[in-house]
Amino acid sequence: MKPYKGYLIDLDGTMYRGNEVIKEAPDFVNRLREKNIPYLFLTNNSSKTPEAVSDKLNQMGIHSTPEHVFTSSMATAKYLKQQKQDASCYVIGEVGLHDALKREGLQITDQHCDFVVTGMDREITYEKLAQACIAIREGAQFVSTNSDIAIPTERGLLPGNGALTSVITVSTGKKPIFVGKPESIIVEEALNVLGTDIKETLVVGDNYHTDIQAGINAGIDTLMVFTGLTPYEDLPNLEVKPTYDVQKLTEFTIL
Amino acid sequence: MKPYKGYLIDLDGTMYRGNEVIKEAPDFVNRLREKNIPYLFLTNNSSKTPEAVSDKLNQMGIHSTPEHVFTSSMATAKYLKQQKQDASCYVIGEVGLHDALKREGLQITDQHCDFVVTGMDREITYEKLAQACIAIREGAQFVSTNSDIAIPTERGLLPGNGALTSVITVSTGKKPIFVGKPESIIVEEALNVLGTDIKETLVVGDNYHTDIQAGINAGIDTLMVFTGLTPYEDLPNLEVKPTYDVQKLTEFTIL
Repeated sequence: MKPYKGYLIDLDGTMYRGNEVIKEAPDFVNRLREKNIPYLFLTNNSSKTPEAVSDKLNQMGIHSTPEHVFTSSMATAKYLKQQKQDASCYVIGEVGLHDALKREGLQITDQHCDFVVTGMDREITYEKLAQACIAIREGAQFVSTNSDIAIPTERGLLPGNGALTSVITVSTGKKPIFVGKPESIIVEEALNVLGTDIKETLVVGDNYHTDIQAGINAGIDTLMVFTGLTPYEDLPNLEVKPTYDVQKLTEFTIL
Repeated sequence: MKPYKGYLIDLDGTMYRGNEVIKEAPDFVNRLREKNIPYLFLTNNSSKTPEAVSDKLNQMGIHSTPEHVFTSSMATAKYLKQQKQDASCYVIGEVGLHDALKREGLQITDQHCDFVVTGMDREITYEKLAQACIAIREGAQFVSTNSDIAIPTERGLLPGNGALTSVITVSTGKKPIFVGKPESIIVEEALNVLGTDIKETLVVGDNYHTDIQAGINAGIDTLMVFTGLTPYEDLPNLEVKPTYDVQKLTEFTIL
């Protein structure tokens, strides 16, 4: 155990489950605040703005401002800006993605574009998918917020962005660059925002295949908590283990 | 060369290219008619009714009635009826698929269903995809008209049914049973309709990977014509060759 100077904290399964707060979550965040340790909530959710995510957390008693939120859409916008300062983007996505791209000063267009950018879009149409395929066949690069194949809802598991994105991949034969967890890009972009060193930052999450794998891929220490998706029984079988694991966040001592 | 008692003839690339008739096509069909040899036009197109397909052919001077047309939607409806006489189906698709299922007396429903049936749908929505995923997770079987990943249009290659279907496959982890070419199911269903023996029927088409492969998979003789997608240069490299190949349909003698 060592002291960490920054925390990247997952949301669903770590801070809440759906619309229900995880009991130990508010205290965990309060302990970080007491020690003045900076933190970012790191979410693959691409559809919401940081304001909307932050509101939800505050309503659950988890301290957050919009500046504490870092979505896969925000990471995508920052990544694209690094590739090309004034990149033009054909966008499939909801308000969270459009908002993030605009905040980074990127152009959103229906015409010739540098990038096709896809995120979760519950208003998906054939025309949107067709335009994306045409642009990619004309040479646009293909970037997608995250590869989640299913999202949990009250109705059951519904198609996630990774599933929607597959229409374009299957039709054009081009795979996107995914930004969100388990890819390292979102972690690297989050570290830039948080301003802490990779060796002194901890990724916290419940999903081994997204949260913890993202930390492993980025070469950053990880804390796995068994309040969400991955069951404790899976731990012995994991080839690369998280740096730390706890049943609940109260068990973890913040140094 | 032997006399064939029935012909299964592809459309796009064999009878026409887009909206342009292939010069040798009307004569080929007329020669079949002169010899009273029954034929079916066999198309992966799932969106049109046989009436609409037949109208297009007649306008091009190719003799057809609706009874000469056999679409992947019609094959799917017949296949489903064989699985379960009064099967209930949740349907993603256009008029051609809805019409075909109704004509076979199958039930179309939004509620609990035996089958999720997907075909080309340019009015695709997230809700349709979500309902399909829920039904499949609840145990419905998954059947799709065809696996075409792209369809040629004046705007370029746009997503085909196989690409749209991938949303459901990726999200649920369940692969559909595909009915259309290159699968053998459409050929077997067409033989039932045409009423000729597999050993005395010939599949005619331009696309090695759909038309000819469907014939090979069904164990039926094939005639490949180089007026469409697969170029003549590919022929030497094909591991399993078509039974016959011609540059144009005029070169083929109907015995």
